[in-house]
Amino acid sequence: MQKRTTNCIKELRNLGLDAIVVSDPINVTYLTGFRNAQGYLLMTTSGEIIYFTNFIYLAQAKQKTDWQVISKQGNIFQSIANKITELKLKKIGFEGRHMPHLEYQEIVKHLSAKIIATVDLVKNLRAIKDNKEITLIRKSAQITTEAIEFIRQIHDQSMSEKTLAIEVEKFLRLKGDNQVAFPSIVAAGKSSAFPHHLPSEENQTGNFFITDLGSKYYGYCADLTRVFFWGKMPALLKRVYETVLKAQQLAIKRVRAGVKASQVDGAAREFIEKKGYGKFFGHGLGHGLGLDVHEPPYLSPYNEKPLKEGMVITIEPAIYLPSKFGIRIEDMVLVRKNKGEIISGNPNR
Amino acid sequence: MQKRTTNCIKELRNLGLDAIVVSDPINVTYLTGFRNAQGYLLMTTSGEIIYFTNFIYLAQAKQKTDWQVISKQGNIFQSIANKITELKLKKIGFEGRHMPHLEYQEIVKHLSAKIIATVDLVKNLRAIKDNKEITLIRKSAQITTEAIEFIRQIHDQSMSEKTLAIEVEKFLRLKGDNQVAFPSIVAAGKSSAFPHHLPSEENQTGNFFITDLGSKYYGYCADLTRVFFWGKMPALLKRVYETVLKAQQLAIKRVRAGVKASQVDGAAREFIEKKGYGKFFGHGLGHGLGLDVHEPPYLSPYNEKPLKEGMVITIEPAIYLPSKFGIRIEDMVLVRKNKGEIISGNPNR
Repeated sequence: MQKRTTNCIKELRNLGLDAIVVSDPINVTYLTGFRNAQGYLLMTTSGEIIYFTNFIYLAQAKQKTDWQVISKQGNIFQSIANKITELKLKKIGFEGRHMPHLEYQEIVKHLSAKIIATVDLVKNLRAIKDNKEITLIRKSAQITTEAIEFIRQIHDQSMSEKTLAIEVEKFLRLKGDNQVAFPSIVAAGKSSAFPHHLPSEENQTGNFFITDLGSKYYGYCADLTRVFFWGKMPALLKRVYETVLKAQQLAIKRVRAGVKASQVDGAAREFIEKKGYGKFFGHGLGHGLGLDVHEPPYLSPYNEKPLKEGMVITIEPAIYLPSKFGIRIEDMVLVRKNKGEIISGNPNR
Repeated sequence: MQKRTTNCIKELRNLGLDAIVVSDPINVTYLTGFRNAQGYLLMTTSGEIIYFTNFIYLAQAKQKTDWQVISKQGNIFQSIANKITELKLKKIGFEGRHMPHLEYQEIVKHLSAKIIATVDLVKNLRAIKDNKEITLIRKSAQITTEAIEFIRQIHDQSMSEKTLAIEVEKFLRLKGDNQVAFPSIVAAGKSSAFPHHLPSEENQTGNFFITDLGSKYYGYCADLTRVFFWGKMPALLKRVYETVLKAQQLAIKRVRAGVKASQVDGAAREFIEKKGYGKFFGHGLGHGLGLDVHEPPYLSPYNEKPLKEGMVITIEPAIYLPSKFGIRIEDMVLVRKNKGEIISGNPNR
């Protein structure tokens, strides 16, 4: 955590801030290692770490010894403001994309210091993973690829989307953390044309479905999408599947430190466009993942920032044909100096 | 939904607003019935319902025919602002406790109309349930009481907290919605002293644990806490258990339409204080529940508002003895004209 705190303080100094109020619980976990975070963290450039929480999380928070815990007494925003005043902090950042407008106003109301919206300050630090994080993400990816094998073993065509989702999440949770990275998608037949279909009790999985799922392992998310098909693929489905797979391969080949996110997106998108399916691929190519299943960097035509060594991203091109079907193939890729390393097994399954 | 829209419009008119931008997805679901909500709803006092979303949810959103869907083209806040200008709306509300500060600023930037923070406008409408909602909540409560029986059947003392949580959530999901109301708490022995303990792989459930869990049924949450004990209770545990149980009974007896939330809280709190455990009951007595597991009304010493007929609340007094154990007993109560009706079975289990 020491390194993370240091990096955060460096960013604060760059922005001329004396401290930041961190409201996003995942950012609190990242900076402090505390995994049951429901509160607000005040981190100062002189290295003080003060955590504001209520009775429900107090005893757990107090088990950590490297921060000061202030329990909510009446208004939590008043407590935060009081502490800022007590420490004579002059210029404070907060998480502008996370903190609700009225919470911001509550703090302002009690404060004489200047408070400034920061944008993804901690999230951007999170984008580059250290070795320990990469080890945990690899393990999470491995559990998730095992879950794909598990689906092959247990699947029968009469199984509903919902039952399959429940069974595979049980598998993921027994092998990984108690919680999965996100609610699993199981989308059979025509439902696959919806990128985020909710698994239904009525839909049988049949001989064709796609599943998008991921475990957590010590908090670190995996995120994988696979297409399942039994029997002979109809020509259109086969063409679309092969187009998506090829697009994914082209994009992964483009990954390395220094290349723009938009260029990786472009590698897949241009191929899909060339094949005539451009308007059926309406979302970005992928996203970073770590403690959150969606975090910076985002791979889209609009993100001109370069990828950096140590980022972990998904590559998930897709083609959704309305009322027909959708195909998405998603893998996890570690950005290395000269290449992208697939850390989620073999995409062509 | 017609009734809900009408009630919402009435509230808007009371506040002199021409429309509201709804950002909380659960409020969107409540007002429109759309259950896979990831976007922003603009609802005007003249009854227009316009939904702003991105490609991923577009096809699903378009299946609904009673609203206009605008897909994100570049900046979603610009789209919202454009629509507000096009409709010549002058005074717009937004959800001040939900919308992040920078999203609010984005809308303001593009807008000439006046935009005003509302506080729990839709949430407060949600507090009073209609008959259809009550039926769904009863069913959700029933599934959850069945899950308690299920735990009795499958439990053995060597089972870990985590395994028990996974098994019981599978049960809840197979009988109810694909998602549970919240991550189940299973806290054995000393862990029970933490109100929100995370189930662990290392802790065996043994002969004493508490579990706090709930299903969803057509989106409606249940929330139940039970104490499990096998064998002869040690004297202190027994005294604390009986104190909490009695406190709960006293509070439930106090429930009826018109009584202040604080009075119901007081009925339990005063009894616990009288028994000498006051400082070990550090949270509120309960909360409303419906589409969200925590929603208005909140039962605390500070809420002077009266309960109303059709509210569904939890009553969950507790005593947490640090480093020893905690006891919480939680039931769901429907507020009726002259009484509180327990809708979650028999608390004394």
